[in-house]
Amino acid sequence: MTSTVGKVRARVDEALTGFVAERIEENRSLWGDQVADLISESALSGGKKFRPELCYWGWRSSGGEDTDTIIKASASLELFHAFAIAHDDVMDNSDTRRGRPSLHRALEKIHRNEGWPGHPEAFGRHMAVLIGDVLLTWSDQMYQESGIGPQCLTTARPILYRMRNEVIAGQGLDLKQEHSKSPTLGEVLRVVEYKSARYTVQRPLQLGAKLTGKASPELLAGLASFGVPLGEAFQLRDDVLGVFGNPSVTGKPAIDDLREGKHTALITLARERATPEEREVLDRWYGSPEIAAHSAKQVRHVIRATGALEAVESMIDDLVKDARNALEKTPVHPDSSEALSALVDTLTRRDK
Amino acid sequence: MTSTVGKVRARVDEALTGFVAERIEENRSLWGDQVADLISESALSGGKKFRPELCYWGWRSSGGEDTDTIIKASASLELFHAFAIAHDDVMDNSDTRRGRPSLHRALEKIHRNEGWPGHPEAFGRHMAVLIGDVLLTWSDQMYQESGIGPQCLTTARPILYRMRNEVIAGQGLDLKQEHSKSPTLGEVLRVVEYKSARYTVQRPLQLGAKLTGKASPELLAGLASFGVPLGEAFQLRDDVLGVFGNPSVTGKPAIDDLREGKHTALITLARERATPEEREVLDRWYGSPEIAAHSAKQVRHVIRATGALEAVESMIDDLVKDARNALEKTPVHPDSSEALSALVDTLTRRDK
Repeated sequence: MTSTVGKVRARVDEALTGFVAERIEENRSLWGDQVADLISESALSGGKKFRPELCYWGWRSSGGEDTDTIIKASASLELFHAFAIAHDDVMDNSDTRRGRPSLHRALEKIHRNEGWPGHPEAFGRHMAVLIGDVLLTWSDQMYQESGIGPQCLTTARPILYRMRNEVIAGQGLDLKQEHSKSPTLGEVLRVVEYKSARYTVQRPLQLGAKLTGKASPELLAGLASFGVPLGEAFQLRDDVLGVFGNPSVTGKPAIDDLREGKHTALITLARERATPEEREVLDRWYGSPEIAAHSAKQVRHVIRATGALEAVESMIDDLVKDARNALEKTPVHPDSSEALSALVDTLTRRDK
Repeated sequence: MTSTVGKVRARVDEALTGFVAERIEENRSLWGDQVADLISESALSGGKKFRPELCYWGWRSSGGEDTDTIIKASASLELFHAFAIAHDDVMDNSDTRRGRPSLHRALEKIHRNEGWPGHPEAFGRHMAVLIGDVLLTWSDQMYQESGIGPQCLTTARPILYRMRNEVIAGQGLDLKQEHSKSPTLGEVLRVVEYKSARYTVQRPLQLGAKLTGKASPELLAGLASFGVPLGEAFQLRDDVLGVFGNPSVTGKPAIDDLREGKHTALITLARERATPEEREVLDRWYGSPEIAAHSAKQVRHVIRATGALEAVESMIDDLVKDARNALEKTPVHPDSSEALSALVDTLTRRDK
């Protein structure tokens, strides 16, 4: 069944490529070639397509047939994600994304190369916000033009609005936390709930199910009980990989997350458990632009020594168990149960 | 019939107030009181509601009955506009909007008052982008939940997508022009076409007409021939008022636009026609943060002396004539023709 999951991803990619090519053609003259190419790249550049896959399997879990319409509706979530990334990277001041320059940095570079007057950084940031706005519009258009009937699209839309409200407000919470010295574990996990658990897993599953027009309340509630712990485990795994992952697999230098200094559950636990000496290492290096190989090693050592890594691994294990238990109790269509179970591994495994 | 236009505005305000209050209640705990109140303020704070009115009269022009559903669908354009303003003000670095601090400045102030760590300006800019994203989501939701049937909403959606693509790309063109020494009149008018003529007038009219599900191709083409020159005239009038308007009527200091230094048709014409001495005045003061009462007077004098003001007034007259001629030839429903004609005055009059 894992191969089927892979096949969904390839079909999503194909649908996206076709849709984006049409939109770029329509709008190229307005944006100019250089910016248009960057829009296309942002819309299509990799990513693991978890949200479309979850949406597709949510549809199948509710008895939906394997159609191209659900592939298109699911793929629209990837354009939504490209929007969210464009805006998040501006807010986080991120230099790279998936091993390449982030969108606003790429735009900044165009400005510099062309020798335009004004500030290259401001140009990059502002144009990246606009491109995010365009990607959001295209996401909406792809959903609406998926070929699923107007009545079903309308039935499912409230889930889409919930998802949008939640992820944007989650980013707002995150932004407030960045402007806070040391949030508690509870505060950090609230951001995880909104920015990851609901947005990445629960809502895509429910959206797919709702789109069939025949999802039962039991199924929708079950997908929530399954999706939330799975999504939390996914984010905790991502945090661990950001610090301890293999750069050749994660696609970003293992030092980037340490330099960025996000308030993750991992670092919050390490802070809470640290001795004064360990705390000093974290305060000195975590989130410092000057962190390098040696100091990164020290930070990793502290995270292990405090037991924070072990605690997070144990949280992940518990969440994965909760998700699997919930899945067993959820009345999903038999065609989807193997794939949903395989997705638990994909989203939480250690080597991705 | 002007009183009916005013009545539409009051009904739009009422619908907006109700819808926004519900959204704020749903999301208040995520945003916190201070930010939630600012979201509400941005969504509701005045504005002339031209776009909803044009949408409403587009509906009536296509034979739509006077219903609350079209009021709600029309009001959704005002939330879209609040989104556009939130993002534009960040990009233009505007301090004020409608005589009050712009959203990002108000957020910056909260950050300062609370003594949060980090940069108040960055917090303000980033949170304003997020709030814009939320307002766009709400706009979409209000449209979708207007009560107009799914089939008609779906028929009209492509116009909404065109509008969004155009105004965002128009802002992109504008951004590029800010990073350009002196664009030609043609380049400036292209931004006017996308950011104002299509966005403010043509698309709202066509959206309303399309929403009835029975707009003829002749009507839609006629509304375009009417809407584009009217929208251009509206923007040119706005540019003139920005420099020569009465602050007690326009709601912003008559010096703000001069200080901002936008590439308007008015200033572009003045530049093209200026003597070297006059050009020096414009280069020295137009767009300078140091401009004050006396230098503003000099700039205004140059704009008059070069004949630019007269030329723009004459362009406005011609555009208004074009719009009126187009309206006469357009097969609008009799119930709408007086109101559409009255809107020509409202959008292009000298004292607004």
